[in-house]
Amino acid sequence: MDIPGTLREPADLEKYRGDWSGLKGGLPAVVYRPASTAEVAAIVRSCRAQGARITVQGGLTGLAGGAAPDAGDVVISLERLNQVEDFDDIGGTITVQAGVPLAKLAEIVEARDWYFPLDIGARGSCQIGGNVSTNAGGNRVLRYGPMRDLVLGMEVVLADGTVMPMLNRVVKNNTGPDLKHLFIGTEGTFGIVTRVVLRLFPRPAVRRSALCAVASFAQVAQLLKQARGRLPGLSSFEVMWQEYLVAAARALGRAVPLGGGHPIYVLVEAEGSTAPQMQEIFEGFLGEMLEEGVVADVIVAQTQEQAQSLWDFRDAIGELLKQLSPFVSFDVGIPLRVTADYVETARARLQAAFPQASHLFFGHLGDGNLHIVSGPHASEADQLAVDEIVYGLVAEVGGSISAEHGIGRIKKPFLHLSRSETELEVMRALKRTLDAGDALNAGRIL
Amino acid sequence: MDIPGTLREPADLEKYRGDWSGLKGGLPAVVYRPASTAEVAAIVRSCRAQGARITVQGGLTGLAGGAAPDAGDVVISLERLNQVEDFDDIGGTITVQAGVPLAKLAEIVEARDWYFPLDIGARGSCQIGGNVSTNAGGNRVLRYGPMRDLVLGMEVVLADGTVMPMLNRVVKNNTGPDLKHLFIGTEGTFGIVTRVVLRLFPRPAVRRSALCAVASFAQVAQLLKQARGRLPGLSSFEVMWQEYLVAAARALGRAVPLGGGHPIYVLVEAEGSTAPQMQEIFEGFLGEMLEEGVVADVIVAQTQEQAQSLWDFRDAIGELLKQLSPFVSFDVGIPLRVTADYVETARARLQAAFPQASHLFFGHLGDGNLHIVSGPHASEADQLAVDEIVYGLVAEVGGSISAEHGIGRIKKPFLHLSRSETELEVMRALKRTLDAGDALNAGRIL
Repeated sequence: MDIPGTLREPADLEKYRGDWSGLKGGLPAVVYRPASTAEVAAIVRSCRAQGARITVQGGLTGLAGGAAPDAGDVVISLERLNQVEDFDDIGGTITVQAGVPLAKLAEIVEARDWYFPLDIGARGSCQIGGNVSTNAGGNRVLRYGPMRDLVLGMEVVLADGTVMPMLNRVVKNNTGPDLKHLFIGTEGTFGIVTRVVLRLFPRPAVRRSALCAVASFAQVAQLLKQARGRLPGLSSFEVMWQEYLVAAARALGRAVPLGGGHPIYVLVEAEGSTAPQMQEIFEGFLGEMLEEGVVADVIVAQTQEQAQSLWDFRDAIGELLKQLSPFVSFDVGIPLRVTADYVETARARLQAAFPQASHLFFGHLGDGNLHIVSGPHASEADQLAVDEIVYGLVAEVGGSISAEHGIGRIKKPFLHLSRSETELEVMRALKRTLDAGDALNAGRIL
Repeated sequence: MDIPGTLREPADLEKYRGDWSGLKGGLPAVVYRPASTAEVAAIVRSCRAQGARITVQGGLTGLAGGAAPDAGDVVISLERLNQVEDFDDIGGTITVQAGVPLAKLAEIVEARDWYFPLDIGARGSCQIGGNVSTNAGGNRVLRYGPMRDLVLGMEVVLADGTVMPMLNRVVKNNTGPDLKHLFIGTEGTFGIVTRVVLRLFPRPAVRRSALCAVASFAQVAQLLKQARGRLPGLSSFEVMWQEYLVAAARALGRAVPLGGGHPIYVLVEAEGSTAPQMQEIFEGFLGEMLEEGVVADVIVAQTQEQAQSLWDFRDAIGELLKQLSPFVSFDVGIPLRVTADYVETARARLQAAFPQASHLFFGHLGDGNLHIVSGPHASEADQLAVDEIVYGLVAEVGGSISAEHGIGRIKKPFLHLSRSETELEVMRALKRTLDAGDALNAGRIL
């Protein structure tokens, strides 16, 4: 299939099959790498005319297999749609094409003394369009919200090849349905995001970090409420249960901080100005939490190097995953008031079923996002049993089976645990309305 | 029409016609005041069976006439759906029925040492369901976002009478389309919101306010960027052009603060803890802005009474509207970098066309929301001419014709200025999907 004015580049089809922890996509029939919205639209129209199915690809860093093609799919990779189109220094907005990598965007923005707060492990390869389509989260959702809250406007190519511009640049816009939410977090199933207008923030001059040891989850919740109210610029609240911290220290070949004998650890980060009072407030707050017994022990980083060395434990997850492979990982959303029970019960059930494996708990608890990694689990049957323990409990407490990674292909069988039958029906009705021929990313989510 | 188990209360049909600055609704055929979701669903099903049209009503405080019934409509008023159903002190969430008034909610929340930040002039009468359906904004959007950002989950009765529960309680939930956005800001045209789960925040211990006089809009933009980066807890950034402040002072019978001779005034508010360093930072920041010449003059409130007396000027809008009646008012969204030009051009065109009338500019500029009031304008033709000047310019600069009040019936003729034909088509397709019979709030928005 040739599309006038676009590039057909089948050179290395294999590369576009991708690989998602064991899930490999089928071999696409053809890969297009359009360099403009008009080219995307032309490809979509041509596919429609021929009844071809489309898989949309960004940086191939998703964790739910949403970008895995079916064999014979037309792949549209947005990697060449990578231009910055507008930078508004006054209002603090940037307009970019969907294929711009996140790290490149952050660099461009910071060079002009602004700040784009989304930050995830895949920053070097992941693309803005993928961040939008999966509603990416990361470490600073507590302060800035997920990608959904950072998008002001966008342009989308619909399933019939129509280009829908909605390049809003203002924070408040109440002119009927806010259609961008149809395309945020829907993993390319309702349309192809080609351009995005993003909100920027003033660049924080410094970051302050501390690692707190806490005796119980009730005290973690207390620390969170106090920190939200009293720590200006609170940007991260990362919780690590003891087993996680001990395993991370081992993976890093370092001593466990604060002795490692406490049940829970919290990495607290606040962003702000260089005003000396900000440091006083940060240290004063933690000192008070220590005095009041909310926190059992604390390390306050005095330099950026010390801060990084605390963050190393949180960032050690990449290394840990290699050691626990083949692992099963989760990013569930759990209401704070049932988190302690959830962790205790899930851990007990996992240990009873798989006493030889490691079961690590950690997460962005400031926004209810709990990560669990369990492994190694060699057989598919074991992996499924782990899924059933973790997701079954999520359904029991009314949580979400995916707080940030999305559903894709991998979590589809469990979607009904988080969404009612009526919701699923409305989702299907939306899909029929926006993509009657099921041309875009068929078989994902629903 | 009688619905088993519900109250039919036609006692005072006249009251439910409402009155929206000149727009009076038609007389409804009947008014139902259901006290449960099941009753709402039964009424909707019964209307559907009989082909009756429904107007949904909350506190009747909307400014776009969205709650105005057509003659013969079935009105569903949610005023008796007014229970608080759950309060989560640990996670900071509250679950309420849609008819709870905003002020009552705020009171209940603050009594338990939490905080719900949405605050608008109509707080005493407006209801949470209406706040959701219109995506209400107000003075603290800069820090907390509009209602859209404060809703975690909801329950909706769809046009066919199906109850759709999506009572999510976690901040991060990436399990397919986030369906709540179909019902936020869509003014009851896609479904009837019956229950809402809201995010709460720690209650700020103090608020600090200052009034700054500024020489140019370029400096307002500079002050905003600096304040966002350096003023912890920045919660309001309310801009008032000179004519507004002078008129407000006259309406209040008070002297114009800071002499009244500056072109623009900014009311800055920051929320935070009682830590003495916070006051130092607030005053230090404003002192520095003064030294650097970003700000020409400033009053820092030293007590809550002084703060209130500064806010009186912003809140004088209610009084001003009475004096300028019959007025035409706007809440447009304008990108910051074109705001200065927009105001200058709009003012010049309005003055040229209506030299006898007052044209006042003010707004929540921290989020691009500009309010304009022009009056008195006795004739409908003059009012339309004012609309055309203001909205025509909005379209020229790529702004939004409604930043917070919504479209309803009143702004429908201008919707095409803010939304492309493709967007309007997708909106119509969504309406057909969710309410094929056009039963819910027909004739609003589209």
